[in-house]
Amino acid sequence: MNTKERYQILFNKINQYNSGENGITRIAYSDEEQTCTHAFMRMCKAENLEIRMDACGNVIARREGRRNDLPPVVMGSHLDTVYQGGKYDGVVGVTAALEIIKRLNEKELVTDHPIEIISFACEESSRFGVSTVGSKAMAGILDKEKYRHLTDRDGITMEKAFALCALDFDSVDEASRRQEEFKAFFEIHIEQGPVLINNQKKIGIVTGIAAPVRLIIKINGKASHSGTTPMNMRRDALLGASEIALELEKAAMKEQAHGTVATVGVMNIHSGAMNVIPGEVELKVDIRSISSESRQRVIDHLYQVISQIEDTRQLDIHSTVISSEEPVLLSQKVIDTLTRISEEKTLPYEVMQSGAGHDAMNMAKLCPTGLIFIPSVDGLSHHPDEYTDMDDVLLGIDLLEDVILYYAGI
Amino acid sequence: MNTKERYQILFNKINQYNSGENGITRIAYSDEEQTCTHAFMRMCKAENLEIRMDACGNVIARREGRRNDLPPVVMGSHLDTVYQGGKYDGVVGVTAALEIIKRLNEKELVTDHPIEIISFACEESSRFGVSTVGSKAMAGILDKEKYRHLTDRDGITMEKAFALCALDFDSVDEASRRQEEFKAFFEIHIEQGPVLINNQKKIGIVTGIAAPVRLIIKINGKASHSGTTPMNMRRDALLGASEIALELEKAAMKEQAHGTVATVGVMNIHSGAMNVIPGEVELKVDIRSISSESRQRVIDHLYQVISQIEDTRQLDIHSTVISSEEPVLLSQKVIDTLTRISEEKTLPYEVMQSGAGHDAMNMAKLCPTGLIFIPSVDGLSHHPDEYTDMDDVLLGIDLLEDVILYYAGI
Repeated sequence: MNTKERYQILFNKINQYNSGENGITRIAYSDEEQTCTHAFMRMCKAENLEIRMDACGNVIARREGRRNDLPPVVMGSHLDTVYQGGKYDGVVGVTAALEIIKRLNEKELVTDHPIEIISFACEESSRFGVSTVGSKAMAGILDKEKYRHLTDRDGITMEKAFALCALDFDSVDEASRRQEEFKAFFEIHIEQGPVLINNQKKIGIVTGIAAPVRLIIKINGKASHSGTTPMNMRRDALLGASEIALELEKAAMKEQAHGTVATVGVMNIHSGAMNVIPGEVELKVDIRSISSESRQRVIDHLYQVISQIEDTRQLDIHSTVISSEEPVLLSQKVIDTLTRISEEKTLPYEVMQSGAGHDAMNMAKLCPTGLIFIPSVDGLSHHPDEYTDMDDVLLGIDLLEDVILYYAGI
Repeated sequence: MNTKERYQILFNKINQYNSGENGITRIAYSDEEQTCTHAFMRMCKAENLEIRMDACGNVIARREGRRNDLPPVVMGSHLDTVYQGGKYDGVVGVTAALEIIKRLNEKELVTDHPIEIISFACEESSRFGVSTVGSKAMAGILDKEKYRHLTDRDGITMEKAFALCALDFDSVDEASRRQEEFKAFFEIHIEQGPVLINNQKKIGIVTGIAAPVRLIIKINGKASHSGTTPMNMRRDALLGASEIALELEKAAMKEQAHGTVATVGVMNIHSGAMNVIPGEVELKVDIRSISSESRQRVIDHLYQVISQIEDTRQLDIHSTVISSEEPVLLSQKVIDTLTRISEEKTLPYEVMQSGAGHDAMNMAKLCPTGLIFIPSVDGLSHHPDEYTDMDDVLLGIDLLEDVILYYAGI
């Protein structure tokens, strides 16, 4: 059995744990996810790793090194999924880590630093509306009292969900770890976007993780009859909304060098009807960048445009920032190392940013962190059709193995 | 008691018949509407009019003239309302007609031609999705087999609704009348738009009734992650939709001299979410004009824009015309007469078009027809807050009286 066959079996085993009919549904702290997580712990145990689950449900599996006083080199991702998600998101990162341990065991390689696998709990926001819970707890930035009472769609609180997994939410702080406990952290993840596929690259070396500013924009005009209101007597909220959407695109286009993106994902017309000029429209806007300055330029343009449109179209427009997170820049040294290794291996790579959040962004607060992307066919993710060619997964694992060995020392 | 007080009492009496709490709800062929209609018939009877209800539920009340071999001069509108409508739409036209009869009776005036009031059945589309049913039947253009099976929101067919009013749907054709049976028809109606109020005019003399072309436009792009999809790799259906909406506005603006209007009233995003680039959007478009040529120029521009956007944004756009009606031009002679009388009475008037449909548009197929608008405060209609100053209603009634007497001959 070659490594590809071996890896494929491991990958398939994890995806057996699924409560959905369409795609993969393995919601955080659910029975399926917990069964999967415990199965993964047994698989780690079988590779002679020392295993434990922390107070937040993160699994930590440790392979001793030559010098166990040194901090471990860590790799991991998550096993939970969204509702009706795919097989690759999260799973690749966790299984790749175990595959690398198997390779080291097979070669009987001993590293200077210990090596750890972490399978993070509750990376997806599908259940409680908040993401990367496990890595936030580990980085000590979890807002305990806020999270405690968050509920899922069945009304179960996070605290209760913990209890059902035999975890004590009151102790969640015990999952936090100190910077000295880590040498470096690496995560391999599918891109969840079209850049690598479109540019025919196999590896993405991530420089930073963009953070969204999210806004709700309420546009108030005047609902009136579409037949009896002359064009020059209208206060059409939908046309104001359309201008905002197009101006937002224009502003983000100007910032392409910074990878900044801006999206209107929701445009709700209050009681829309074919024969009524829309009087009230709500927009939901998401603006992301790894450059706070670039993102701010888009937001500034948005506010300026809103003010103009209020005048020209006689609309009342109110915008509210509902969340604003800081972009995370990853270690330049790690980026350089990944670039060097990719070149040595003649892997077609792209230095790029991540538009989506990952556990790596929290781990970056603890230690030098690297995030490796592999291609997503059609840029698709969080979808049953999510797909990455197995050969591409293995190229990613090879790179991860090399960088782990480089940092762990042999 | 002066005429204003008398008219106000009549107006209030009609609006007693109301099944709604908010505004007026007097749905076609409902108990409230039928009770109201029969009360109106008794009021006509009290003025010595000869009354009948035709096979479609239209009420016809006739005042004999000096020469009853001559065709009658006819005036009317409707008593049914939308759900939670206002007090003025339709009611003004019917009650104005009865007020004029009261004036003639008071003055013991005998006209050459007989005079008829018609209270048309089922003008509003609220119940069965089709409008001006009574006047269509009278003009002989009712699509009997199509209408028979139309259902209301409780699943009651039009045929059944007729039966509950002791009307036989099979006989509906008997409501149709010939051109020779009419000298002229006049309707007074609130404008349902802001033109008279904005231009500080008291009377609108309508030249024609715009007819809508209605389209559904389906825009297909690609749903993808708002964070991970660079701006230049997007196929954002919402941005395509926004461009279409704004271009439609631009095209209609160019046709303002023809009173052409174009509206996107509905813009549905298929499973819109804050972090998803919209992949599928549906637009509902309404384009109206009394000039078929002007309307066609807007439609041509729309198709051209759609084709451009398909290219520039890599979208698939399919548009379907779901209805296309012909504009109705009213008699120039009637318009000239109304203009002359308005000038004689020094009424501030505006020659304008109607963007909404009225029974007058069907009656125009039978005889010279005039449509008189009075101001709607705030341009509001089909709404509990619909309002017209009673003095403005009476100015309209005075004009209607004069034109009726002119056509009826004294």
